[in-house]
Amino acid sequence: MRMDINCDMGESFGAYRMGEDELIMPFVTSINIACGWHAGDPGVMAKTVRLAARYGVAVGAHPGYPDLLGFGRRTMETLPGEIKNYVIYQIGALCGFLREYGMRLQHVKPHGALYNLAARDERTAGEIISGVKAYDPDLILVAPAGSFCAEMGVLAGLTVVREAFCDRAYLGNGHLAPRTVKGAVIHDPEKVRQRVLSLARSGRLPTLEGGQIDLAAGTLCIHGDTAGASRLAQTVRQALEEAGVEVAPMGKRS
Amino acid sequence: MRMDINCDMGESFGAYRMGEDELIMPFVTSINIACGWHAGDPGVMAKTVRLAARYGVAVGAHPGYPDLLGFGRRTMETLPGEIKNYVIYQIGALCGFLREYGMRLQHVKPHGALYNLAARDERTAGEIISGVKAYDPDLILVAPAGSFCAEMGVLAGLTVVREAFCDRAYLGNGHLAPRTVKGAVIHDPEKVRQRVLSLARSGRLPTLEGGQIDLAAGTLCIHGDTAGASRLAQTVRQALEEAGVEVAPMGKRS
Amino acid sequence: MRMDINCDMGESFGAYRMGEDELIMPFVTSINIACGWHAGDPGVMAKTVRLAARYGVAVGAHPGYPDLLGFGRRTMETLPGEIKNYVIYQIGALCGFLREYGMRLQHVKPHGALYNLAARDERTAGEIISGVKAYDPDLILVAPAGSFCAEMGVLAGLTVVREAFCDRAYLGNGHLAPRTVKGAVIHDPEKVRQRVLSLARSGRLPTLEGGQIDLAAGTLCIHGDTAGASRLAQTVRQALEEAGVEVAPMGKRS
Amino acid sequence: MRMDINCDMGESFGAYRMGEDELIMPFVTSINIACGWHAGDPGVMAKTVRLAARYGVAVGAHPGYPDLLGFGRRTMETLPGEIKNYVIYQIGALCGFLREYGMRLQHVKPHGALYNLAARDERTAGEIISGVKAYDPDLILVAPAGSFCAEMGVLAGLTVVREAFCDRAYLGNGHLAPRTVKGAVIHDPEKVRQRVLSLARSGRLPTLEGGQIDLAAGTLCIHGDTAGASRLAQTVRQALEEAGVEVAPMGKRS
Repeated sequence: MRMDINCDMGESFGAYRMGEDELIMPFVTSINIACGWHAGDPGVMAKTVRLAARYGVAVGAHPGYPDLLGFGRRTMETLPGEIKNYVIYQIGALCGFLREYGMRLQHVKPHGALYNLAARDERTAGEIISGVKAYDPDLILVAPAGSFCAEMGVLAGLTVVREAFCDRAYLGNGHLAPRTVKGAVIHDPEKVRQRVLSLARSGRLPTLEGGQIDLAAGTLCIHGDTAGASRLAQTVRQALEEAGVEVAPMGKRS
Repeated sequence: MRMDINCDMGESFGAYRMGEDELIMPFVTSINIACGWHAGDPGVMAKTVRLAARYGVAVGAHPGYPDLLGFGRRTMETLPGEIKNYVIYQIGALCGFLREYGMRLQHVKPHGALYNLAARDERTAGEIISGVKAYDPDLILVAPAGSFCAEMGVLAGLTVVREAFCDRAYLGNGHLAPRTVKGAVIHDPEKVRQRVLSLARSGRLPTLEGGQIDLAAGTLCIHGDTAGASRLAQTVRQALEEAGVEVAPMGKRS
Repeated sequence: MRMDINCDMGESFGAYRMGEDELIMPFVTSINIACGWHAGDPGVMAKTVRLAARYGVAVGAHPGYPDLLGFGRRTMETLPGEIKNYVIYQIGALCGFLREYGMRLQHVKPHGALYNLAARDERTAGEIISGVKAYDPDLILVAPAGSFCAEMGVLAGLTVVREAFCDRAYLGNGHLAPRTVKGAVIHDPEKVRQRVLSLARSGRLPTLEGGQIDLAAGTLCIHGDTAGASRLAQTVRQALEEAGVEVAPMGKRS
Repeated sequence: MRMDINCDMGESFGAYRMGEDELIMPFVTSINIACGWHAGDPGVMAKTVRLAARYGVAVGAHPGYPDLLGFGRRTMETLPGEIKNYVIYQIGALCGFLREYGMRLQHVKPHGALYNLAARDERTAGEIISGVKAYDPDLILVAPAGSFCAEMGVLAGLTVVREAFCDRAYLGNGHLAPRTVKGAVIHDPEKVRQRVLSLARSGRLPTLEGGQIDLAAGTLCIHGDTAGASRLAQTVRQALEEAGVEVAPMGKRS
């Protein structure tokens, strides 16, 4: 059994600080680095790559919409082909910073509204996949378990790693319960621990309706911008290690 | 004898058109593509790379300041290290689009105020060189003949190609005569022809003061945004070919 | 009988030129000036206001989405209240430039995707109206004939002027025929002339289906970025004047 | 005796938080609100104006360079007239939000690199003054004591209020001691208290060299982005009130 733990990082911008990258880095195995469009800038990218190199953490690109004001959380209408080009641009920009450390990009995980739209919209998913393949068909695509994007990525020949959220409740249809629903966010560390173990052992999680759902998750997401993120990361990592699960980057070759 | 002809391209942005890329492309051997900071956007970059691939023209990156409003023509104060990161980011972003066509980046030529400042400012030149080397030490650096940037690039072990302007008058100190000086811009095609031949044959040009200057130029720049740019490009190319000079990309291995 | 002719202007940005403002200005009575978000910049705004002052043309604000890359033509998701604040910001920024000429802002016409969304989306229309009222309840709101935005503006107590397009075909439901439909764009100057007269005399236009539609239009829009815009503007103005219609700014007090 | 206390506010942007506006607001009498160029956005501006209205604090505009990435701290080359237009645009944009609360703009204080450059550069100072006058000649201009900008503002007929920093050491030439100099930043509350009183009573401060300097200061600046800013603001206010100095907005008519 093996599991990856990922976290969005490099989301600071200029004089603006966001996230506790240094505190979380020791507990994760993969990070998704913002590429300067919805967050991040060249200086932040360079610094975040250096930090990842120091901790031996695998790096992925985290491309988003051209919307710093909205932090990439707002869906934007696009013309055919635009998303593909946005993805290529942002992957390329990040890869520039990896070369100094002799590192290779491991994966691509779309950010925010782009991630959410790709999960349900065929054209958006298709363009992201097309951009990733054009850049490097050996890159891993990270997508929500059960999403359009995951299924289409597999059909297009990409290695797809499905992502699950261990501190968020799922509905029977495979979607996350909206944050407004009671019980949608799980704060109790013990409950989080049990869910992490369930995911690692069976790939399954209980749903809010009382059933079970098979997420086939290969990576667990830690939200870096929530309070207590580093403690949550530590909880997740310890739970996995105590259960004998190998915690390793999603791209590790066995 | 061999000479390269280069031109800045891909300077359109969104709904805004700039330059006559399609008309000039047949006459040049290398192009410098804007990387989305002072000009250009992912769609324009993709389209410009495709055009270069079709014509067999070599591609370089044309990084600039983060100043779309000023088209990269305004010097900006920067903190140590910022320029290096700006250069890496922009080179990387452009290289993303080359992969689809199996093309390799040939060179880097800084744009506008960054080009001008690097010519005379040691720190700026040093950071550009440092960024280019971090990305790929085999990349060619294009710099003005006689500039700080050219000399430092050579010392740092980069291949440096010196650039001359065949429609601009030079002063004895090796600088371009300011546009406000009478005779600074040369409009007469016959005079341009003679200068192109002089450069190709001897690497030398007459100065405005009446002397001669050795520019050791390996590439001639066509300004794509001036009226009649494609005709000038044609004039330059024909002059070279008629004189038996091989017109080829600066990176061509003999 | 009286009619206003309006045109979007001030859409250049930095080194990028767009539109033929100087050629069109003599034929229109109101202009909508871009406010630096989807197009325009402070220098362009200052210059456009000066031009309007010279020709005695009335000025309106043309606020759009924060999307220069997409020229404000792409719908963006927004949180409640954001559109209202975007509108206030952009109106205010433009009004700064009117003060030097002792001019007053006449109207507000949303741009591109914001205009289109406000026509059919209640929340968007409501926020635009709320922003206009917060800035100055005496401002005129320009909205498409038959739109949500026009109806809601009236209910909110604003003076609403309905806009019609004399070179575009209408459907029976009051919407413009999509450009892909045959006959959607009217190129024949004589047909345009007849439509202009029909609008001025009866407020009505023939529909593509063969019926008639009452648009109650108080202003005719000239698209400044289409080829031959100034000739179209001249055609429209002459047609109106020859028919004895007073061509005057929409805000003129009788 | 009367003294104003001012603080830069509204420097958050989108998802990025900066400053402790709510904690500092009770202790200041004037605030300088970022206008969306180097910091701030329409939502932040609206919220900051509302907060100022609630506390009865006077509002000024805080225009800066178009450089969010550098937080307006980097000098940028500009063409003649650009600064004037930048200032008009930003003042206007902010004033839009004051209208809802029936508030009037009290003053303009340039931000960061623009403030510093205007202190020593005649053209920059002249353009700022020109922009302020074009918008409203009754606006107060805030400038460093002893600066070009202050002197030129007076000559141009503007009301100028000179600003001093009570937690920063001055040199004999009237400039702030660079932060790298020992003793440049004053952390001891008791020392700050004494300086505040000195300024309020005599307009004078001791210099680092051991002399005295007359700053003729009408407002004291609290840096909102430094740790402990609200405590410093409280210290300054209490010191003034205990000494019988009236703490009131700079624009208050006696």
